[in-house]
Amino acid sequence: MNVDIIITNAFVLTMEGKGVGMMEDGAVAIKDNLIEAVGRSEDIKQSYSAAEEIDATGKLVMPGLIDAHIHTGLAIVRGVSQDINNWMQEGNWPFMKHVSADHHQKGSMMNIIEGVKVGTTTFCDYDSHMNDIVPNYAKIGARARVAELINEIPADIGDIPVGELYPFHAEIGDRKLQNNIRLLEQWHGAENGRITCMLGPHGPDMMSRELLKEVQALAEKYDTNVHMHVAQGDREIEQMVKRYGKRSIPFLDEIGYLNERLLAVHLTEATKEETELVAKRGAAMINCSGSIGIIDGIVPPLHEFIEAGGSAALGSDQAPGNNCNNMFNEMKFAAILNKVKHTDPAMFPAHLALRLVTIDAAEAVGLGEEVGSLKAGKKADLLIVDLAEPSLSPVITSPIRNIVPNLVYSAKGSEVEAVMVDGQFIMRERRLQTVDETNELQAAQAAAREISQSAECTIHPESVLLKRMEAGEL
Amino acid sequence: MNVDIIITNAFVLTMEGKGVGMMEDGAVAIKDNLIEAVGRSEDIKQSYSAAEEIDATGKLVMPGLIDAHIHTGLAIVRGVSQDINNWMQEGNWPFMKHVSADHHQKGSMMNIIEGVKVGTTTFCDYDSHMNDIVPNYAKIGARARVAELINEIPADIGDIPVGELYPFHAEIGDRKLQNNIRLLEQWHGAENGRITCMLGPHGPDMMSRELLKEVQALAEKYDTNVHMHVAQGDREIEQMVKRYGKRSIPFLDEIGYLNERLLAVHLTEATKEETELVAKRGAAMINCSGSIGIIDGIVPPLHEFIEAGGSAALGSDQAPGNNCNNMFNEMKFAAILNKVKHTDPAMFPAHLALRLVTIDAAEAVGLGEEVGSLKAGKKADLLIVDLAEPSLSPVITSPIRNIVPNLVYSAKGSEVEAVMVDGQFIMRERRLQTVDETNELQAAQAAAREISQSAECTIHPESVLLKRMEAGEL
Repeated sequence: MNVDIIITNAFVLTMEGKGVGMMEDGAVAIKDNLIEAVGRSEDIKQSYSAAEEIDATGKLVMPGLIDAHIHTGLAIVRGVSQDINNWMQEGNWPFMKHVSADHHQKGSMMNIIEGVKVGTTTFCDYDSHMNDIVPNYAKIGARARVAELINEIPADIGDIPVGELYPFHAEIGDRKLQNNIRLLEQWHGAENGRITCMLGPHGPDMMSRELLKEVQALAEKYDTNVHMHVAQGDREIEQMVKRYGKRSIPFLDEIGYLNERLLAVHLTEATKEETELVAKRGAAMINCSGSIGIIDGIVPPLHEFIEAGGSAALGSDQAPGNNCNNMFNEMKFAAILNKVKHTDPAMFPAHLALRLVTIDAAEAVGLGEEVGSLKAGKKADLLIVDLAEPSLSPVITSPIRNIVPNLVYSAKGSEVEAVMVDGQFIMRERRLQTVDETNELQAAQAAAREISQSAECTIHPESVLLKRMEAGEL
Repeated sequence: MNVDIIITNAFVLTMEGKGVGMMEDGAVAIKDNLIEAVGRSEDIKQSYSAAEEIDATGKLVMPGLIDAHIHTGLAIVRGVSQDINNWMQEGNWPFMKHVSADHHQKGSMMNIIEGVKVGTTTFCDYDSHMNDIVPNYAKIGARARVAELINEIPADIGDIPVGELYPFHAEIGDRKLQNNIRLLEQWHGAENGRITCMLGPHGPDMMSRELLKEVQALAEKYDTNVHMHVAQGDREIEQMVKRYGKRSIPFLDEIGYLNERLLAVHLTEATKEETELVAKRGAAMINCSGSIGIIDGIVPPLHEFIEAGGSAALGSDQAPGNNCNNMFNEMKFAAILNKVKHTDPAMFPAHLALRLVTIDAAEAVGLGEEVGSLKAGKKADLLIVDLAEPSLSPVITSPIRNIVPNLVYSAKGSEVEAVMVDGQFIMRERRLQTVDETNELQAAQAAAREISQSAECTIHPESVLLKRMEAGEL
């Protein structure tokens, strides 16, 4: 049978079955945008003739990685807000208040390039200005499952003192809801199905109960997911208790929000009982280890959620919090932070971390039929990883195979040499094929310069970070 | 004045002063193996003429990184022993018992290449067979401060049941001590001072009090440091209590071991009082966050040690424990693990992590006069880092500079594009200049294959890891 591409002589990490589905001397055949077959090299070579055969001796072929929670636009202010309390208001806000839709778009482009270069093929992007950002995915050729942030709070929310109840403005909520609907109408299923959309309520504390219900009805109508921050911080919990006399998760349960459509992001402040309730109701948990570790110094209850039978995935969150958007980083942090939280090195083994960015992630975000494993009929989203890089050397296959532990605990992401999405190589030999990286990064740099100049006038003279600048620590 | 090289138009992170000593539009002049001057680009260009001028616009020049604790030879069995309890005996030992001096040498070469590619210029290598390993440093051109492991326990120590007191054999101790002396005689100050040696007692539990004292006398004689595991695990503490009725640190204090010559590695099991005692006595603490997180699920008391006024440095430890040997990884883990240990995002700021792999590390390991910062008269050990990589973009300089947080929390190590040691570029355009990387990695791969074949016959059929293989998790 004729196919477009066969990749042969590889270690193939299919992520099928209960473990990692490793196949030594494996091959993958790709036709159009689909995986035609996965099997032993010899069998695939006999059964298929291809326009291009790639000899992947000494390399690993694996599913593309899924970043289940990212705000790509915010990468434009990466690194201005670390090592402080009250990260959002103290650190980010002096910059964020000057970030325009155009800045978001440029930051997003830079951030998607960053992700693709370290093997991310699916981005669950959750941001304001998503209608401006989503063309980046069309251009780069990555898979995206996007949501427009919906809330009812004014743009100067960062200036509202901590402890004060947020004001809700119905017209703001309506405008943002309309933006999310426009996104769904224009992009849901676009680019040969590569781009799909979700609803994006910002958090249970940032909008009225009525608007939350309206969002849920739309998720039913469009048969898609609701992507939402849940129990993401003590400020959210305080707002909920002040407004409704209930913490976030009991409130959401009461209004019927905890169900299989919901991607509950963070759960940083969830109690054990609340965590188990979310799992029991069938909502997915999205865990952002790097970001919550840096911003809050907390390890969210991911282990507890999985133990309770929940469906989970990892996300890299925003660059000004986590600094990097690299799912290899997230695998490693999820595993190690859970080990130290429970003082148990046997906990959270490498294969679990790998599942949480591939097959388990695909199922959690509603793409389980399409991506997350290498299997005939699924979309051809895959990586070629060079196992001859020092960080992955030597390769040992017997009596213990060392590839999976090394992928999780040693790989930096730069070992990924080629990235295919929907049957097309969007990166080869570590260079993006669809955009000019240098031009895009320079555009982001110019945008950051504009924001920086505006922030000079508005940063508070008593800012902890300014003092750190003066002390020569930055 | 004529110099050999000037690097201009760079961000220069000098690591001088109390913070990071950042200089924008800076330059460095290098003559022979020394830094001749550091200053503003304009001034350096006016004052020096150089055989080679490197325009580092958009790049960062910073001191080479110091890995204060690494066992490079053991990298030959990277990744065979993760996610289990009793890591050493259950996971490593079935492989380690087949590792020869030749295998050590080849694993070491691979591991040093890995480190150099991510910016490590100084390796405090602590391993058996060091006399066989040290020529690798001569060949690659990296700086090394090495020690031969000294203990009095038989080679089949991995077979001794947990809980049983180790037997000591004086003839083993003597042979290993003589190896360390031979190392000192042949290599201390070799290669233009690039290679120096320390004494390497394996741990207070692995040798007699008499041999420990003999080692200490030799450290005085050679005027160098003692590099030793201290309070590295519960097994060590059990041995000490059983043998001497004392925990490691009180025992070492009693025999006068806690002083400025000592590099006390790990302190995993040290109590608060013990930690403070080590700091007070002037010994340095070497902290290996990644390794101890994976092997033990523990965050060692580094923050507490620094608070007590101690001098500290970071190390990457052995690849079969930590999997990777990358000081960018260690900076990030040290910062985030200490934040989550104390639930405090403001703790352990980025500049502290950076100091612990540069200037503070140099002082801790006894090289403070030579390396660790960029300053006229110090050895020219430096990195050129590409700030235009997506992970370090955009560069923001005002009102808050984002370079240091991004180096610590976002850089993978692959952003390092050139590495200079002792005035020579040993890596340029990300390729080693002194050895053929491909050949060296292939030699390590062949060695690993031999070990793997031997391990097939000796791995315990009830091994947890074998069961994980059977379950398809590896």
